[in-house]
Amino acid sequence: MMDDVFSYLEKNFSADLEAVRTFLRQPSISYTSQGIAETAELVRSMIADLGGAAQIIPTPGHPLVYGRLDEGADRTLLYYSMYDVMPADEPGWSVDPFAAEIVDLPKYGSSIVARGAVNTKGPTAAFFRALKAYKAVRGKLPVNLIFIVEGEEEMGSRHFNEFVPTHKHLFAGAEAAIFPFFAQDEGLQTFMWLGTKGLLYFELTARGGEWGGPRSRGIHGCFAGWVHNPVWRLVQALATMVGPGDRILVQGLADGAIDLSKSDRQAMADCADLYNERDFLDAYDVKRLKWPGQGVAVWEKLFSQPTLNIDGIWGGYTGPETKTLVPHQASTKMDVRLVPRMEPDAVVAAIRKHLDDHGFSDVEMKVLNKYHWSKVSIEEPVVQAMLQTYQQLGRRVQVQPLNPGSAPYWIFERVLGIPYISGGLGHGSRQHSSDEYCTVQGLLDFEKSMVQFLDNYPRIAAAAGQNASR
Amino acid sequence: MMDDVFSYLEKNFSADLEAVRTFLRQPSISYTSQGIAETAELVRSMIADLGGAAQIIPTPGHPLVYGRLDEGADRTLLYYSMYDVMPADEPGWSVDPFAAEIVDLPKYGSSIVARGAVNTKGPTAAFFRALKAYKAVRGKLPVNLIFIVEGEEEMGSRHFNEFVPTHKHLFAGAEAAIFPFFAQDEGLQTFMWLGTKGLLYFELTARGGEWGGPRSRGIHGCFAGWVHNPVWRLVQALATMVGPGDRILVQGLADGAIDLSKSDRQAMADCADLYNERDFLDAYDVKRLKWPGQGVAVWEKLFSQPTLNIDGIWGGYTGPETKTLVPHQASTKMDVRLVPRMEPDAVVAAIRKHLDDHGFSDVEMKVLNKYHWSKVSIEEPVVQAMLQTYQQLGRRVQVQPLNPGSAPYWIFERVLGIPYISGGLGHGSRQHSSDEYCTVQGLLDFEKSMVQFLDNYPRIAAAAGQNASR
Repeated sequence: MMDDVFSYLEKNFSADLEAVRTFLRQPSISYTSQGIAETAELVRSMIADLGGAAQIIPTPGHPLVYGRLDEGADRTLLYYSMYDVMPADEPGWSVDPFAAEIVDLPKYGSSIVARGAVNTKGPTAAFFRALKAYKAVRGKLPVNLIFIVEGEEEMGSRHFNEFVPTHKHLFAGAEAAIFPFFAQDEGLQTFMWLGTKGLLYFELTARGGEWGGPRSRGIHGCFAGWVHNPVWRLVQALATMVGPGDRILVQGLADGAIDLSKSDRQAMADCADLYNERDFLDAYDVKRLKWPGQGVAVWEKLFSQPTLNIDGIWGGYTGPETKTLVPHQASTKMDVRLVPRMEPDAVVAAIRKHLDDHGFSDVEMKVLNKYHWSKVSIEEPVVQAMLQTYQQLGRRVQVQPLNPGSAPYWIFERVLGIPYISGGLGHGSRQHSSDEYCTVQGLLDFEKSMVQFLDNYPRIAAAAGQNASR
Repeated sequence: MMDDVFSYLEKNFSADLEAVRTFLRQPSISYTSQGIAETAELVRSMIADLGGAAQIIPTPGHPLVYGRLDEGADRTLLYYSMYDVMPADEPGWSVDPFAAEIVDLPKYGSSIVARGAVNTKGPTAAFFRALKAYKAVRGKLPVNLIFIVEGEEEMGSRHFNEFVPTHKHLFAGAEAAIFPFFAQDEGLQTFMWLGTKGLLYFELTARGGEWGGPRSRGIHGCFAGWVHNPVWRLVQALATMVGPGDRILVQGLADGAIDLSKSDRQAMADCADLYNERDFLDAYDVKRLKWPGQGVAVWEKLFSQPTLNIDGIWGGYTGPETKTLVPHQASTKMDVRLVPRMEPDAVVAAIRKHLDDHGFSDVEMKVLNKYHWSKVSIEEPVVQAMLQTYQQLGRRVQVQPLNPGSAPYWIFERVLGIPYISGGLGHGSRQHSSDEYCTVQGLLDFEKSMVQFLDNYPRIAAAAGQNASR
């Protein structure tokens, strides 16, 4: 049914590939602001290029790109994405992270290796090319689109999260939201998330104070016999929070595991056989998981339990050789991934209470970011449109009850009151790490899946008896 | 008896002060090699300027400066010091650390604030000026001197420690060693050490491996639900080593506390009333010690117990904002201060065994440095010469059984078989920290104490019935 557009995409793919690479070559690092303004303008021009009305909206942080593309259709979808990427300063890059070189990867063949290849400038650029192809072949899209593309997702979407609730009128008429993404895993299995975990990101700091320890600077290590050490204090506080085997010991968090719903279990059970532990272990260079094995039980661990992770730790002398020091402070960056029914503020209170109850009221907790969890029903037309897309393109789908990561989908669910789906064919990995990549073949598959999805949506929404927004 | 030399020192003090400041303005950072060659040459020229034969001896690291000054005396002392300093890259410097500015400190008055002011370029330069004054007034020194000045003390004296055992002939004839130093504490009390603790400096590293965890790079934090975290592993290993209240739990180290000898206790008891906790707390900006109180019990804690200190800790993401990550490794730098009878290699074995016994055989231990402990008897003429110096200059002395820090004195005791003393009047502090300083008045007091000590030594050694070396 989409053969005309698919054929156009295949014929013009080399131009699309170059367009994606060009977009990846423009750095857009939200932490340093490098290339943010230039990239926002590129996104604005991609919307304008489709005939849409687009604008760059300043925020106290990085700007949002907002646009509308009225195709005279009955139904309107909200396109959400981000134009920022993580820094690329970690060691281990085998190529320039902003050269968008094509590398022949042993397992995946031709791939673009670049910061943002998968998260998320690769899919973003390819999505716009897919829209362009659809219009080139058929004249207009089957849906109207509202675009919102943020530049602070890697910093926690803070201004996006503030903007939407105070500007709901800009999103009026959108029936559902879509976040296009490469949804094939390391074994090229296609997966789909029916929601996302929430996130609490915070720092703990132990510093010298009334309890002891040097307060304003590190002091000579010989005084360890007299002076308490804030690094030991932090270690001891942390050791009360997570026990051997990574068991969480914080009340209100340890007891946060949920029972998955019958419908979630059913969806998972269908696809547990698509999980291949070996693919995961190879992709991430891990020898052993916390829960080795196969099947639905392993998946349940990922989706039903909160995690309490240390992202980083630092304090004292960390240079070359040997400097002896009783440091004056030590800190960790930590995150909790929240399963449904677990709200960030309650977890903040639980951790604070845990520290206080264990005698660590001096250990400071600074919250850097919060995301609510979110769920969407598999029955929603926008979800069904994506599921059917995969089936039409010959893929079985591993339906997962939650994204184990975090995304600001709660904005759609709780603020705008609309369902959402993320996805698309295509594969990339090593996001937030060196040698991030996406496969070249996946880009074409992604484009096809996007045009198929857009074609599916109005039909499925109508069949579900859902009134059109206009 | 030394009035002639004291008067000369007072008259010429402004020139000596400038000489000390000039020496401090020459950086000599062993970690970065900055100014090492230039400073070695300055030390060589200071020996030559006295009429000594001096040379710069290369090592696989930074060079040693060696010299001999034959004054035709009956007795010979070995002068040991270092010309290197710590880096000055820590925050908190209120002046350029290599400008040697004179600052009026609230508690101490005119002081030189500079890296090396106390540790140890201030005393080193002033010692040479004192020798020069002695010779100017009296024609020659009362002892011959052998000089050995190393450039890697802050890196653990590794090549000095290798050089002396293989070049004992260069030190033949030395009856005792002296390490001149400002021995007045924050309350300007004069202290003396009858030995030094030993040191074991090592790194522990937890990294992903057979036990789990990412092996080659950090991975996205959302996988904390499946993948073990090396930072948690390190925290849990550390938590088995030191318990609440900083109690050491490592067998072979926890049981390492010694009973001080009767003579050490006697020496301490005499002077426990000279300890003022308030002075220490103010100087180091600490609100509470591990063992608050006064008297000999507090001192005993410092000298009779080993310490297990964390100098620094690092792993994962430590930059701004929020990056979620399961890191692939985490490390600590740690030191053990060894009391007598506790040898570094035995402690390495004890820590390794502890980690293995607690299931952390994957946690890697890398030894960076070892110093043996060392003791010297209060009866030694070189010690008595310093004690009498302090008394002659009107000071009570707090005799401490050990230096709570570490120094390579075991080289004198175990390798050369000679006693040693460190000391001199004068005050400075904040070594290894920002705004290191020494007082201007202390420099003059130091010079006087050094000439008095040199004058005392031959007389006391003779009175003790000790044969002269020539």
